[in-house]
Amino acid sequence: MGTITGPLSGDAKNTVAEALQGALVDLIDLSLVAKQMHWNIVGHNFRPIHLQLDELVSLAREHADTIAERAAALGINPDGRSATLGRSTKIAQPESGWIEDGKVVATMTDILEGVGRRMRERIEATEEPDKSTQDLFVRIAQDIDKERWMFQAQR
Amino acid sequence: MGTITGPLSGDAKNTVAEALQGALVDLIDLSLVAKQMHWNIVGHNFRPIHLQLDELVSLAREHADTIAERAAALGINPDGRSATLGRSTKIAQPESGWIEDGKVVATMTDILEGVGRRMRERIEATEEPDKSTQDLFVRIAQDIDKERWMFQAQR
Amino acid sequence: MGTITGPLSGDAKNTVAEALQGALVDLIDLSLVAKQMHWNIVGHNFRPIHLQLDELVSLAREHADTIAERAAALGINPDGRSATLGRSTKIAQPESGWIEDGKVVATMTDILEGVGRRMRERIEATEEPDKSTQDLFVRIAQDIDKERWMFQAQR
Amino acid sequence: MGTITGPLSGDAKNTVAEALQGALVDLIDLSLVAKQMHWNIVGHNFRPIHLQLDELVSLAREHADTIAERAAALGINPDGRSATLGRSTKIAQPESGWIEDGKVVATMTDILEGVGRRMRERIEATEEPDKSTQDLFVRIAQDIDKERWMFQAQR
Amino acid sequence: MGTITGPLSGDAKNTVAEALQGALVDLIDLSLVAKQMHWNIVGHNFRPIHLQLDELVSLAREHADTIAERAAALGINPDGRSATLGRSTKIAQPESGWIEDGKVVATMTDILEGVGRRMRERIEATEEPDKSTQDLFVRIAQDIDKERWMFQAQR
Amino acid sequence: MGTITGPLSGDAKNTVAEALQGALVDLIDLSLVAKQMHWNIVGHNFRPIHLQLDELVSLAREHADTIAERAAALGINPDGRSATLGRSTKIAQPESGWIEDGKVVATMTDILEGVGRRMRERIEATEEPDKSTQDLFVRIAQDIDKERWMFQAQR
Amino acid sequence: MGTITGPLSGDAKNTVAEALQGALVDLIDLSLVAKQMHWNIVGHNFRPIHLQLDELVSLAREHADTIAERAAALGINPDGRSATLGRSTKIAQPESGWIEDGKVVATMTDILEGVGRRMRERIEATEEPDKSTQDLFVRIAQDIDKERWMFQAQR
Amino acid sequence: MGTITGPLSGDAKNTVAEALQGALVDLIDLSLVAKQMHWNIVGHNFRPIHLQLDELVSLAREHADTIAERAAALGINPDGRSATLGRSTKIAQPESGWIEDGKVVATMTDILEGVGRRMRERIEATEEPDKSTQDLFVRIAQDIDKERWMFQAQR
Amino acid sequence: MGTITGPLSGDAKNTVAEALQGALVDLIDLSLVAKQMHWNIVGHNFRPIHLQLDELVSLAREHADTIAERAAALGINPDGRSATLGRSTKIAQPESGWIEDGKVVATMTDILEGVGRRMRERIEATEEPDKSTQDLFVRIAQDIDKERWMFQAQR
Amino acid sequence: MGTITGPLSGDAKNTVAEALQGALVDLIDLSLVAKQMHWNIVGHNFRPIHLQLDELVSLAREHADTIAERAAALGINPDGRSATLGRSTKIAQPESGWIEDGKVVATMTDILEGVGRRMRERIEATEEPDKSTQDLFVRIAQDIDKERWMFQAQR
Amino acid sequence: MGTITGPLSGDAKNTVAEALQGALVDLIDLSLVAKQMHWNIVGHNFRPIHLQLDELVSLAREHADTIAERAAALGINPDGRSATLGRSTKIAQPESGWIEDGKVVATMTDILEGVGRRMRERIEATEEPDKSTQDLFVRIAQDIDKERWMFQAQR
Amino acid sequence: MGTITGPLSGDAKNTVAEALQGALVDLIDLSLVAKQMHWNIVGHNFRPIHLQLDELVSLAREHADTIAERAAALGINPDGRSATLGRSTKIAQPESGWIEDGKVVATMTDILEGVGRRMRERIEATEEPDKSTQDLFVRIAQDIDKERWMFQAQR
Repeated sequence: MGTITGPLSGDAKNTVAEALQGALVDLIDLSLVAKQMHWNIVGHNFRPIHLQLDELVSLAREHADTIAERAAALGINPDGRSATLGRSTKIAQPESGWIEDGKVVATMTDILEGVGRRMRERIEATEEPDKSTQDLFVRIAQDIDKERWMFQAQR
Repeated sequence: MGTITGPLSGDAKNTVAEALQGALVDLIDLSLVAKQMHWNIVGHNFRPIHLQLDELVSLAREHADTIAERAAALGINPDGRSATLGRSTKIAQPESGWIEDGKVVATMTDILEGVGRRMRERIEATEEPDKSTQDLFVRIAQDIDKERWMFQAQR
Repeated sequence: MGTITGPLSGDAKNTVAEALQGALVDLIDLSLVAKQMHWNIVGHNFRPIHLQLDELVSLAREHADTIAERAAALGINPDGRSATLGRSTKIAQPESGWIEDGKVVATMTDILEGVGRRMRERIEATEEPDKSTQDLFVRIAQDIDKERWMFQAQR
Repeated sequence: MGTITGPLSGDAKNTVAEALQGALVDLIDLSLVAKQMHWNIVGHNFRPIHLQLDELVSLAREHADTIAERAAALGINPDGRSATLGRSTKIAQPESGWIEDGKVVATMTDILEGVGRRMRERIEATEEPDKSTQDLFVRIAQDIDKERWMFQAQR
Repeated sequence: MGTITGPLSGDAKNTVAEALQGALVDLIDLSLVAKQMHWNIVGHNFRPIHLQLDELVSLAREHADTIAERAAALGINPDGRSATLGRSTKIAQPESGWIEDGKVVATMTDILEGVGRRMRERIEATEEPDKSTQDLFVRIAQDIDKERWMFQAQR
Repeated sequence: MGTITGPLSGDAKNTVAEALQGALVDLIDLSLVAKQMHWNIVGHNFRPIHLQLDELVSLAREHADTIAERAAALGINPDGRSATLGRSTKIAQPESGWIEDGKVVATMTDILEGVGRRMRERIEATEEPDKSTQDLFVRIAQDIDKERWMFQAQR
Repeated sequence: MGTITGPLSGDAKNTVAEALQGALVDLIDLSLVAKQMHWNIVGHNFRPIHLQLDELVSLAREHADTIAERAAALGINPDGRSATLGRSTKIAQPESGWIEDGKVVATMTDILEGVGRRMRERIEATEEPDKSTQDLFVRIAQDIDKERWMFQAQR
Repeated sequence: MGTITGPLSGDAKNTVAEALQGALVDLIDLSLVAKQMHWNIVGHNFRPIHLQLDELVSLAREHADTIAERAAALGINPDGRSATLGRSTKIAQPESGWIEDGKVVATMTDILEGVGRRMRERIEATEEPDKSTQDLFVRIAQDIDKERWMFQAQR
Repeated sequence: MGTITGPLSGDAKNTVAEALQGALVDLIDLSLVAKQMHWNIVGHNFRPIHLQLDELVSLAREHADTIAERAAALGINPDGRSATLGRSTKIAQPESGWIEDGKVVATMTDILEGVGRRMRERIEATEEPDKSTQDLFVRIAQDIDKERWMFQAQR
Repeated sequence: MGTITGPLSGDAKNTVAEALQGALVDLIDLSLVAKQMHWNIVGHNFRPIHLQLDELVSLAREHADTIAERAAALGINPDGRSATLGRSTKIAQPESGWIEDGKVVATMTDILEGVGRRMRERIEATEEPDKSTQDLFVRIAQDIDKERWMFQAQR
Repeated sequence: MGTITGPLSGDAKNTVAEALQGALVDLIDLSLVAKQMHWNIVGHNFRPIHLQLDELVSLAREHADTIAERAAALGINPDGRSATLGRSTKIAQPESGWIEDGKVVATMTDILEGVGRRMRERIEATEEPDKSTQDLFVRIAQDIDKERWMFQAQR
Repeated sequence: MGTITGPLSGDAKNTVAEALQGALVDLIDLSLVAKQMHWNIVGHNFRPIHLQLDELVSLAREHADTIAERAAALGINPDGRSATLGRSTKIAQPESGWIEDGKVVATMTDILEGVGRRMRERIEATEEPDKSTQDLFVRIAQDIDKERWMFQAQR
């Protein structure tokens, strides 16, 4: 019994670890924020956005799991505890209470813009140290960009 | 556009709101903690516990959604943001890093014991004000008790 | 060949019979009214509400069948004939012709508020005479309350 | 926002509207009467007839929806409210209470004979004004005739 | 390694244990008796009853498993061994050999009446000590009552 | 190896060939135009219309394949190449760039009105020469009329 | 217990009965002949034709059942016994023994040409007496023509 | 291109060929006779027997295909043409017209008794020459015996 | 109405009846004992064994049904009542209470060894009188031997 | 309401836009040309190529949608209108009329060679400006190359 | 922890072990050779044979697993390592490089003839020592013979 | 008929061919070795590892097929024959006989470490000559690394 080893070490491992942990926090908190809006949204477009948010939650959860398991596979401990999320999330938090649909659309567009930008930075950062990790960020960015477009399109 | 009304008011509403919000925090944080262990567990029994934790995550997520939507249906705003979780969770948090399988089993048994006890308190609290909410806690308690047994049984 | 007997008799049976028959009329007529709006709605939000109304129809039909079969199982004859519905429904009927989406939302919110309130009365009424019947009303109320919220949220 | 237009007008539209509305009432009330017997039937052949009636309910509901949506597509308002059914149905209504299986078979054979005859009249009536509507009646008649045979065969 | 603990103790635990063990014996033996008739039935109505009995077997097996796992979750050992069944079943046993369909219907109606009555007693008994266990009996009683009706209806 | 023969010849074959080729162009170009709008739509109702357009694409593709294979089965060469579409389509083409949701709804209503009208002309034209081809146009008209209604209803 | 009645009588019934019985023999014998070739075919194109023949068998069986049940629904006895097939089939029978793939293709093209021609005659014959029966022949002819094309295309 | 060879020759091949061809005729004709009764049955038990006959048809068709393909695999030409069936079937043919349910049950019991007996003779005959062919008859006999019981049981 | 006949008689029938009844008792009691351990097992390997036991239960139930229906098909009454099981089972019964995982593995290995040995004796016994029954024991022995290996392998 | 923004601008955006629009035209026209051949192919290998072409159509449609939605997600308007296809496609168009199977194989091999080469150029072009777009071309090239091989292999 | 025991010993065990190990090598190498041809085949019939080879691979893999697990269940170690295959396979190996379709058909026919012949020898060899193992060879021979026929038929 | 061409030539083609052939041998032999352990493992953790090994087999087979078909698509002959595997595999072979679970875990961790390292070398090698091939290695490495972690975690 013990720790997990992996093919990376030194700076390469640190760089990849930082990118993976950052993405994990982004994706878990994205799922929490999208659920929060899924529950508290009101307005004429309640139903289509309520459903779209749930699709986004599924997508964020699936990618979060992939990212965390990539970390473990490289011998890096993923940290997805609520305190860690609260301390390190870069996603601006919605206020409590009912949220009008237009505000949900605007907020999610902004949040997804930020997550997408950070994923692109992670694509850059991991190009050298680990192509297989980079590929995960490439595919996540595809999905995040697509979701951002579909929120922005309904402004 | 505006707020959601519901059949409850006054103390009844406050009591139910408190129970629902408490359960929501319990269930979301349970899903985060179980995922954390799903990723960081090591030991001879890695695989069956790794898989069981994912079943628990699915169960906790599904109940969390039901509870939050019950709140919304009663005109109560559910709050599942990471900062709220960090501030109000009653689940003892695991340390970061690899966790041995025996410790996972012991920790999850304790956590589920606590969640189960609080669900039973919510069954008591909501008996008078709202039988339909109480019924949700009754069914959640069945699942939590069952999961607790299946962790404890493998100590 | 003959009649069906059951575990209840006297006042208990009468109380439960009245609650079940009332719920049956509520649920069948809810399915008819929701279909009527599903077909006649117009407006910018036609599509999401058109689809939501069909989900509500499915839900109402399924619960109606459960309630009617509970009645039969207790030796009580369920009555779901159109004349009975016309005579005893408590659901305010929509006018004929095209209905604007906003009016559909407002009308369905009101109708579901009424059905939900009567289900809660049936929960009260059946607590003593038959817990297994009460449990059906508890679960129907959960669904009706949820549907009411989702209509009200898009006002 | 407003009304729905369509390719028909004048007498053609009136003829088709009358046929569609008549078929809608036939099909919805057929579903209600078949459910009524599904719940109240007793006798040695309870089970196969109980199940056959539910198949008939599904078939009637599906055709009713197709007919009502054809009406809407032609700019004709379908009317499926319970009062309309009660006022205009041509289906002889069963008495309340338990119904012996032999009587169910005989009654359903008669009801389906009537519905089938009226569908054939609608095939005639819509031949000129609207072949696409006629085709729906042609296919409904196939199903109604088949169900009639299967009830009659078990007399 | 060791025993399973649970939230109940003393009289509450004893009462719940007795109810769960009684229900377990009822449900397993119901599955055995229904299979026995499924295999040995003869008569004009062989096929629908043969199939209905298999549905009843599935239902009884599923509820038996739920009840036994509820016991384990409460730290109570379920006992479903054949000797225990033989010693403690309250279900009158059918004779060996071919059984005519009318006798199967009458016997199953009686057996289900008895199981249903004992489930209602268990609903009463567990109301105080454990609402989550009570809820299982409530739902089992719904299914048992429905099956009883469907057998009685074909007398 | 060689050409395909069929039951029609002379004027009958020419009439049917013209109708089938016309319908093929209508249906393929309908699928292209609907996809164009599916990708370029913006506005509050983006999501429900985006999804509805994809359903229309599937429907148009499926009918196009049926029509082309009917042509081949009659020894008539279907022509669905892009140059043929560009030269012979009767569907007014949308401009390039983002299209507001209201304009999408209005444009699709008009396009579907035209396709529906041409399908009805093909029903007339093929009545004499080939009932089996006519029947395909009858069913396509049902779907096109229904889609037109559902776009018009959300104006 | 007794015979099945139906909406047709006299010449109309006789005409429809003759068409249905003729189609039944065509379709059952088509399924037998296609199976015979499915088993006895040899040659380079064995596999795609072997598979296509099985699709044709499924199609012929499904249509045969529909036709026979239409007959029963009209009070006409379908006759699909082997002696009846042997006596009245109009399909030229293949010789026994292995059959080369080219011969299978040529033979099936001819057989399907004949079945298709007879189906078109039945479309004519049933136009007046029974539109719902005619519609079945219309749809069968679509499938038979399509299969004929796909065999002819691989000559 | 040419014939199919196989592992058997001489008497062994002749014996196996005779058994396979006999079984093929039995199974195809069983499927035709069962369909004939499926369509022409009348009586109180119409529905369960109508459905059971269709299950028997599926079973007979599946086994027929297996048997014919076993023959082909051994270089033996299966012959399932209608004239061959008419000439060599050992199944007593039902009369044309409606058949009462009791008669269907008695007739099918007899037919299946005969088919089962001949299958057992084929098990004997093929024991020496080809165990893999014998095994197919063993499994067919299991199904035929089971079907015979289920028909006989409802006399 | 009456008894079921079959192809066997005299000693052959008695031998087969004894083998089938013995196998039925083995398989039903195997399902009961495996469920008992499924519920009462404790230890580090709780989860994989808990799941394996449920697979074994499914397997035993499926084979028990096949065996009992083979008996009925041969005119032999299967007897699966709890008293019969208690009186005639040859499976050593586990004690009540929690059972450690190692003991479960050892016990199940022994039990399956015994069941497998008795199945092999039944293969011998039925070789002469009924090959189709023998084949069922052959296949059951394959499954029992495989399960025994998989329990023994984890000692 | 308005336009969609995205992470790219200037030359990077222009390069990516050109690559995406070029791929879109390639993929839509590939789907049209493959369908054209799917309908008009004749020859001994009709069936396997007819089916393979439909798989290629599905693949081309799916990738076209992905590419167009990537464009939209980057704020670039995809243009898939028939006139645009006719004007800008680089795929050599097949002549009208029946096409022999050998010619289909040769033509599709050439077309896919060209599409594959252009996809590789797009992989080069987008490496710098947008890794997530490049990745889509990488995966499309995998599928196009595979299809090309499978056509070439059957020359 | 240790070895697996089983019901066989001495010569019986040796005979069965030799048969099982021989079959395992045959089946694994059959899967490798069929995959080799699946990848390297060229010629007009590429596609149907390419697909048939993959079906054969699935079949060979499934039977190989069954055989190896039967060995384990009898306490015999299956050996499926590549060196063992290379050393003991009796299947003539194809040359490297592209293989024309006609040669694939001829080669696979020969290979399957050999595997089939060896399976029949194993049926003989295991008749006495283990009927349950023999039955597996009986069923594998059925599949191998069928595949051989289908390859030979397309020569 | 002839060879397959492709977009690569010279050194680029040789480099890619070497990488693809190396990966093919790694993946096929990985599937053989994992199956070998799947069958011969013994020990307390038999079941979870037995199941995990089968998942690994599926994964290795799927990737092997993708790699071999990529080779063919580039005009490179994949070679997956057993002699080639035996001669060129770099995977250390397990000894024959039962293998204890701990040794399986350690061995598989080492084997997967080696395969993962070689896949990373292939990612490097193919970056220049063929990005589409490189992407396949990137994704295979993700899966291999993940499997390695899950074996190492249970040491």
